[in-house]
Amino acid sequence: MREYDDKSYNKDEYSRLCERQAASEDIFRGRILHLKDDTVILPNGKSASRELIRHIGAVCVIPVTEDGMVYVERQYRYPIDRVITEIPAGKLDSEDEDILEAAKRELREETGLSADEWTCLGLFFPAAAYCDETITMYMARGLHEGAQELDPDEFLDVKKVPLSTLVEEVMNGSITDAKTQCAVLKAARLLKL
Amino acid sequence: MREYDDKSYNKDEYSRLCERQAASEDIFRGRILHLKDDTVILPNGKSASRELIRHIGAVCVIPVTEDGMVYVERQYRYPIDRVITEIPAGKLDSEDEDILEAAKRELREETGLSADEWTCLGLFFPAAAYCDETITMYMARGLHEGAQELDPDEFLDVKKVPLSTLVEEVMNGSITDAKTQCAVLKAARLLKL
Repeated sequence: MREYDDKSYNKDEYSRLCERQAASEDIFRGRILHLKDDTVILPNGKSASRELIRHIGAVCVIPVTEDGMVYVERQYRYPIDRVITEIPAGKLDSEDEDILEAAKRELREETGLSADEWTCLGLFFPAAAYCDETITMYMARGLHEGAQELDPDEFLDVKKVPLSTLVEEVMNGSITDAKTQCAVLKAARLLKL
Repeated sequence: MREYDDKSYNKDEYSRLCERQAASEDIFRGRILHLKDDTVILPNGKSASRELIRHIGAVCVIPVTEDGMVYVERQYRYPIDRVITEIPAGKLDSEDEDILEAAKRELREETGLSADEWTCLGLFFPAAAYCDETITMYMARGLHEGAQELDPDEFLDVKKVPLSTLVEEVMNGSITDAKTQCAVLKAARLLKL
């Protein structure tokens, strides 16, 4: 997991609440998910088990044009058997890939866009209870259209939607993807929309 | 997975983009994570594998007082080895537990609070690419304090923070939990903060 600036770090709180690893078992090492079943010692001295996923981490990008339009994707997601609206995103290619470079790569591959201005919107843990994945969010502005470079086995539609419409769709429940909800609401607040 | 109102459902788009299950293998059935390794047929007729997690689903609650304070928790999360700020939340107890009842239960157990007014803030998929978990968000108002009912093996600190501070902490990157970022920004927009 990448380092990030944990502004609320507090050693006393950490040692009072933390769980210490007693045992660690690898259950499955897949292409994207690495599942472990660990045993921990709780603050009260008892032991407990912790199922968890190790994930390489991901990036997402909200590309906003000068007139307030956003490029989004309609993409099928097999685990939920639905086509949903998402901003461009993807996993890091390797543990040491630069995160901003990964964001530029994913934006270019999925939409063909490049951008002059990149603003980091922070990161989030999608499911800190059982997964160490971080998703780092960027807003891209000063956009230039180019050729999409989709993987031959990747299928998605790109469309342009006003940011104001995306905000409505997050608020009314039509947009259900976590990273898209977070990045849309953050971008809207930054752009005072 | 629970039903929800997919306002953007479109049969043509679905049949053009969807992946059909060709094989499904159970890798691990744990207490919270059920890992599968499926084979799918892509829209171009080729096959691909899909690692995925089945999860029972969860709820979270942002409890906001009349003077704009929010009860949050500081909780240790083993997969990321950090104590983070989160709103009250938890898994459903069973597949058929009523989602609002689960939210009321989690709020009461973790903070002792009950509430007169419940507003659904919608749901999100934390990681639709590899997990079917949904997290349904509520805002609770008209709060009444009572006794916490923590599990003896559950350790967390509850504190009261102004919603305006939480919004700043989401925007400046101090709050890193996905459900907390989404619910704080949604509540702030609803309450015109």
